[in-house]
Formats: sequence, structure tokens, C-alpha cells
Amino acid sequence: MKFTGVKGMRDFYPEDMGLRNWLTDAWRRVSVRNGFQEYDGPILEHLELYAAKSGDEIVEQLYHLTDRGGRELAIRPEMTPTLARMISARAASLPRPVKWFSIPRVCRAERPQKGRLREFFQWNIDIVGVDDLLADAESILVAVDFLREVGLTAADCVVRINSRRLVAAVLEDLRVPAPQIPKAYAILDKSDKIPREALVEMWTRALGDEVPFAAIEPLIGVEGLDALRTLAGSGKGGWAAAARELSVIESLFETLDVFGVTDYCSFEMSVVRGLAYYTGVVYEIFDRQRQHRAIGGGGRYDNLLRELGGPEMPGVGFGMGDVVIIDVLRDAGKLPSLRPGLDLYIVPAAADMRKTTMEMVSALRRGGWSTDFSYRLQPVAKLLRAASDRGAKRAVILGEETRVHDLVTVKDLESGRQQRRPRSEFLRDPMAPIPDSP
Amino acid sequence: MKFTGVKGMRDFYPEDMGLRNWLTDAWRRVSVRNGFQEYDGPILEHLELYAAKSGDEIVEQLYHLTDRGGRELAIRPEMTPTLARMISARAASLPRPVKWFSIPRVCRAERPQKGRLREFFQWNIDIVGVDDLLADAESILVAVDFLREVGLTAADCVVRINSRRLVAAVLEDLRVPAPQIPKAYAILDKSDKIPREALVEMWTRALGDEVPFAAIEPLIGVEGLDALRTLAGSGKGGWAAAARELSVIESLFETLDVFGVTDYCSFEMSVVRGLAYYTGVVYEIFDRQRQHRAIGGGGRYDNLLRELGGPEMPGVGFGMGDVVIIDVLRDAGKLPSLRPGLDLYIVPAAADMRKTTMEMVSALRRGGWSTDFSYRLQPVAKLLRAASDRGAKRAVILGEETRVHDLVTVKDLESGRQQRRPRSEFLRDPMAPIPDSP
Repeated sequence: MKFTGVKGMRDFYPEDMGLRNWLTDAWRRVSVRNGFQEYDGPILEHLELYAAKSGDEIVEQLYHLTDRGGRELAIRPEMTPTLARMISARAASLPRPVKWFSIPRVCRAERPQKGRLREFFQWNIDIVGVDDLLADAESILVAVDFLREVGLTAADCVVRINSRRLVAAVLEDLRVPAPQIPKAYAILDKSDKIPREALVEMWTRALGDEVPFAAIEPLIGVEGLDALRTLAGSGKGGWAAAARELSVIESLFETLDVFGVTDYCSFEMSVVRGLAYYTGVVYEIFDRQRQHRAIGGGGRYDNLLRELGGPEMPGVGFGMGDVVIIDVLRDAGKLPSLRPGLDLYIVPAAADMRKTTMEMVSALRRGGWSTDFSYRLQPVAKLLRAASDRGAKRAVILGEETRVHDLVTVKDLESGRQQRRPRSEFLRDPMAPIPDSP
Repeated sequence: MKFTGVKGMRDFYPEDMGLRNWLTDAWRRVSVRNGFQEYDGPILEHLELYAAKSGDEIVEQLYHLTDRGGRELAIRPEMTPTLARMISARAASLPRPVKWFSIPRVCRAERPQKGRLREFFQWNIDIVGVDDLLADAESILVAVDFLREVGLTAADCVVRINSRRLVAAVLEDLRVPAPQIPKAYAILDKSDKIPREALVEMWTRALGDEVPFAAIEPLIGVEGLDALRTLAGSGKGGWAAAARELSVIESLFETLDVFGVTDYCSFEMSVVRGLAYYTGVVYEIFDRQRQHRAIGGGGRYDNLLRELGGPEMPGVGFGMGDVVIIDVLRDAGKLPSLRPGLDLYIVPAAADMRKTTMEMVSALRRGGWSTDFSYRLQPVAKLLRAASDRGAKRAVILGEETRVHDLVTVKDLESGRQQRRPRSEFLRDPMAPIPDSP
């Protein structure tokens, strides 16, 4: 073949597509039962929608183009800006909270590696129009409901939770100047990924000697509410701002407890997330063994709609890609065994049964039964093997008795049971149970 | 809002998404019951995949870009080249015939107008690896099975069928030189869309005086097999080639008759289709009133895989976009009435029922019931109205009797019936029938 697919993007052959559909069906099912409605936008948006607020990493990874009319467009690298645009356009008429989900195809021009591809599908859950902490908790409930749905237990996965407001308050209490705080986020975000020396160097380069690295070092590795409370208790400088934000986190965990999901949840100070628009609670889902990248993540973005020129509407939401979750499920031995199947496969046992075969195929399909047949007339044994290979539940054999008495032989390919039935009766109820042979 | 969506592309708000999902579910259901398996490819392909064989109109409409590595990429404007690439890559191992379907998102940078948008979804059905005319017939059967599935009758829609080989044979018998035949296709394709004078001019410009327009004029407007037979019978120059191809068309219609779909089918000499790669039978689906563009179309492409550098594998297939079919269904009054709904809406009738509400919401969702509640504590009447607005089947009221006796009041919002039940019993079977009040 002269042509290959684009590197870092996937072809979905039927077996791959079966798995993708299994995953998206689970996402959809969980979304709907949690009270969310599905939406979608176009794959192309105006480039500046992302330039505004998505954060440098994502903007560098945009696939962008200039159309014939000279417009700068980009393939969506994430869904939240589209969501913000759509909600802003109808903000006056939408009942609140807006609880929406989507399963967009998104593209990012980054180096393909384990868990990261240039094209993937991303489940998005968003609750917009309320700043109630209950919405933050509910978005985490939905994530955990999905993990349970696909068989991942609290021993398999963890939702690592933090709050940017808490981190900002701690840094404020430590006298880190407000304009420097986003830089401190970026360094904290890296704190469990790179060695201490590199962190110190990043910190000193970003913040100079104004606040020594030693002052923020106690934050790193703070895991669990108790460790946070200990840190707060030991704090110099009063911890006034931090104490207020600590109580918010405690209240969030109480709600998660009522929802019955705290076994999946852990407070972790190093979680801050890469996207520029998060303002409050942030979280990331990981496998407990940390063998994989983040399975998903989300948080609160109270200023995004306004900053994109829309109304003042707070929001919270999360995204989960299809690449890492499938790797995690595979490693955990929890991928489903999927087998594409048919209801019926029609087997003509004589050349003059071709026409009857085609009539029956057409009638059965029209009746809603997935039905197939061979284009080529072949020996019955070979056609029965083809029926099995295609995953058919039953084979229907048309032969001498069909021509003479209008009888068909129905064979269950799993149990091996078979039965002769009048053709019209069979067509009325093709999957009727086959009794044991006497 | 500062930002708008890209012109000619759609935002799918939940009501639009409901309709899109209804359509794609119908496409998927019909595909599966006709024995097809789903596949998909990436949204981006190498530009030259389309430059090769898609035909000028499509190539002009490509959204293309150069990525950071200097590769020329294009957003897919159709699915067949991707299909050809994927099948070629595994040609040796795929059992034949390959019967695949897909529902890709595709983009074309053309002027938006009624029935044509810059982004749409396109159902694709393909049968690859056999040149049996039965495959051509089966692809038409699938199209008709879908039309029936969504309630469009033979009085609403027609599949207009022709064969490029037949047209080529007729033109050959009329002494049109072989290299000129593709130009003649393009003119025939326009013959029911533009006035005669313009056709004559196009013909003369393209073919000079070598073959006068008058020689091919009898072809235009030939509809139905009888008209074709009459034309063949009246032919000068022997009609040797055409007679052979006429018998192929007759055989196709016989098979369509066995499949029980000829009421939807009509032979029409002016159908040739725009895509460059078609080689045999071609067809287009239209509303009978011709108020809309083509609903879909397809045909045989026996050389495409080889021309893209793959193996020699014949194929036949069709595509149907989501835009025109929805317009046709709307005009025919056959759009479904869709209402997003919930199973249950939990209504706390007292402030101290908040915690119980949240516990129940979590438990019910986990049990697979789509369940919602209000973040704000409001009067019961208002919450019951919210439950109705959200399309809930039942409201579950938690009040004094819940706190004291652990009883919940289940109210069917359609019939108005209600019943008090122990909470644990309710949770085991939330949708159990509610008896008539005594």
C-alpha cells in the first residue's frame, strides 16, 4: 500500500471498534444515570478560542489551519472551551445547573508515547451555573460511578484531590507574591515527577530568592487530610487564609462520604493540574500502582465563561481519555471479552434454495434479526463453519424438505440442538427455544 | 460572547444531540442486522490519499494543514479512501467478503447551503473483496432497509440506479472516444439539473464536434428498464457493448425483486455520480418530490484499492449524510418525538433529608437508575415541578415519615398515582408498579 495512516492516530478495525463502543457506551450509560444530557460541537473551532485560556502546553499542540476565507481554525484539543462557548450563547434560557456530557474526538500534535496519542476520545462531564461545592462532589461521584461500572475498585484506582484556592492560600500565607503563584502551581505539579534538585532549580529560577524553596518544601508529599491538618497546625505566619480553605476541603470530603465514594478519594497537595483555567477544587484519577499516566482529571473553572466574553457562570467538570483507561483495564485484567455476533446464518443446502435464502435474509433483517449468508454456494459443512466463524447463534438450513414441505432446519450452534419447523412459523419467532431431541 | 462557532458547522445542544443519536442508532442497528461490522479511522489522513482518486470537487473542498513535522494532512472529506487504506493493510488476513460500516464525522470546505454543511456525519456501508452482483444488490437492500426502518416508504423515496459500464458501453457504441467518456459522465450527471442549452454548450466544449450532442440526447431522460430496452432496440451501430451491460442491469433488478425492494428502485440513465472511482453500478437515493439534494448514494469501485497501491480487490458501497435525511424526515412528518428523561427525581421535603437524598441518589445511580435531585432546598411543589421539567418518570418524596418510619413516598408523574413504601424495599425495585389507590 502506498499510503499509511497518520502517525500517532489509530485505525479502528472491527475488534478495536467493539472495544471503543463498549467504553463509550459505559461513559454514556453512567452519564445519563447521573442526570447528564449529551451535547457536541464541531471538530473545528476558531483558533483564538484556545489561545485565550487553555494554557501554553495545549496551544503548542494545536493542529491549526487557515481556510479559504482566511479564517484561522484549529481542531479541538479539548472540549471545555466549546462547552463555554455553547453555554454562553444560550445562558439566558438554559435551566441551571446545566449538567451536560460529551464524548468528543480531540487531536493534539504531541509526540506519541504510551498513554498519549495524537487523536483520542475524551469523556467530558460538566456542571455549569452553580458554585455549590455539591457540584464538585457530584462530578467526583460520576467519575467513581464509572470506575465501579467497569469493575475498577478502590484498590485499583484513586481520585487525588486538591484545591487551587487552598494552595494559593498556603502560598499567600508563606508570602509568595500573587503574580508568582501560577509559577508555583507549575512546580508543585511536577513535584512527584522530577527529582528534588531539579525542583529546587525550577523554583529558584522562577521565584528567585524571594521565598526560599525550603519554605514550600513541607507542602510536597502532603497526602491525606490528617497530614494537611498537621501541616496547617505547624504553620508559621498564622495560616489564616489556608485555614479557611482547609475547611472547604473538609466539607468536600464529608459530602463524598455521604455519596459513599471516599474509599476512592485521597487529598494530595501536589495535584494542581496543567490547564490555566482552573480556580478551585482540582483532581486527577490514577491507578494505585502509578504504572500509568492520569486516567482523567478535572476541577472548577469559575472564571472561564466570563474570560471568554460570556456571562459570569461558574463551572466544574472533568475529562477522561480513552487511551489510558483501556491500558489500566487491560493491566487489571478487566477488559471485557467482546465477540461480534449474528442472530442467524442462512445455509442453502441446494442450488435451487438461493432464491429462498435471499427472501428469508431480507425478511429476517426487516424483522430486526441480524442475519447473514454466503454469496457463494458451498457445501453445507463449510457454510456451517462460516456461520460459527461469524459468531452466529443459529444456522438455518434450507434443503429438500424446504422445497417439498416448506420446512426449515434450525440449528443452535452452541448447544448443537436442532429442530425442523414450518418456514412461516420459524419466521414469526426465529429464536424460539429448541427442545431437547427425544 | 466574543467567540462564535465556525460557519457551516453545527453545535449539537442536547435536543439536537438526541436527534443525532436517534439517527446514528438507526444506522448502526440496520448495519448490524444486515451483517456488517463497524470500523473507523482517524479524522486526519495524508493529503495525497485524496489527491489520488476522490475527484476534483472533493479535493477542492479539503481542509488541509501542514503539521510540525512538515507533513501535509487533510481532514477526511469522505470515508472510502480510509476504508481502502485499512483493508489494503490487512488484505491477506481479512475473511471475504469484508462487510463493514462506519459513521464518520467528515468535513468539506464548501459554501454552506440547504442540505450541505461544512461538517456532517456520514453513514458508510461497504462490501469489499467480491465482484458478485449480489453485493451491489445487497448494498441497495441495506439502504432500503434503513429507509423502511425510519418510516420512509416507496412513495417517499426512490433509489435511482444506473451502471457506469452501461453508460460507457452506450457511449462506446456511439463512437465516443474512451478518453472522453469521463467528460461525458460529468455532463450526463448534470442533465437533470441544468437547461438543455447549457448542456449542449458543455458537451460541445468538452467533446468538440466529434460526436454531436444529438447522438447522446436520447440517453437523457431514459427512466425505467422498459425505456432502456426501447433505447437499446432502436440503437444504431449494433449496441453490442450496451446489450451486454443491459443484461447485467436486468439481472440486478431481478435480485432486488427477490430481496423485495424493487418498489423503491428505478433505473435512470442520468445517474452517474461525481466521485472519480466508481466503475460499475451507481445509485442515488432521492425524495420522490425532488425537494431535496440526494439523500445518499453509492456504487461499485473495482479499481480503487489497486490504484491506491493496494491489492486487486473489488468493492461496492454507499454513503448517506445526516443533513438531507433529517430534512426529508422533517418534511415527511416522520421525525421521532424525543424527550430526554430520567427514571427518578428525589425530593427532600425537609432540610434534614439532604443527607438521605444524597445517599439515595448515589445508591440508585449505582443500581443503574437514572436519578437526579436539586442542589438547592426548595418547596416540595417546586421540586415536583422540576422533576416534571426534567422528564422524570417518578418523584420520590422524603419527609417526616422517612425520618420516623423509614418510608418513602413514590409518585408516578404521569398517572399521578402514589404509594408509601419502606425505603429498603423501594431501593430494591424502584420502578415496581404502583397499585390504584383504594
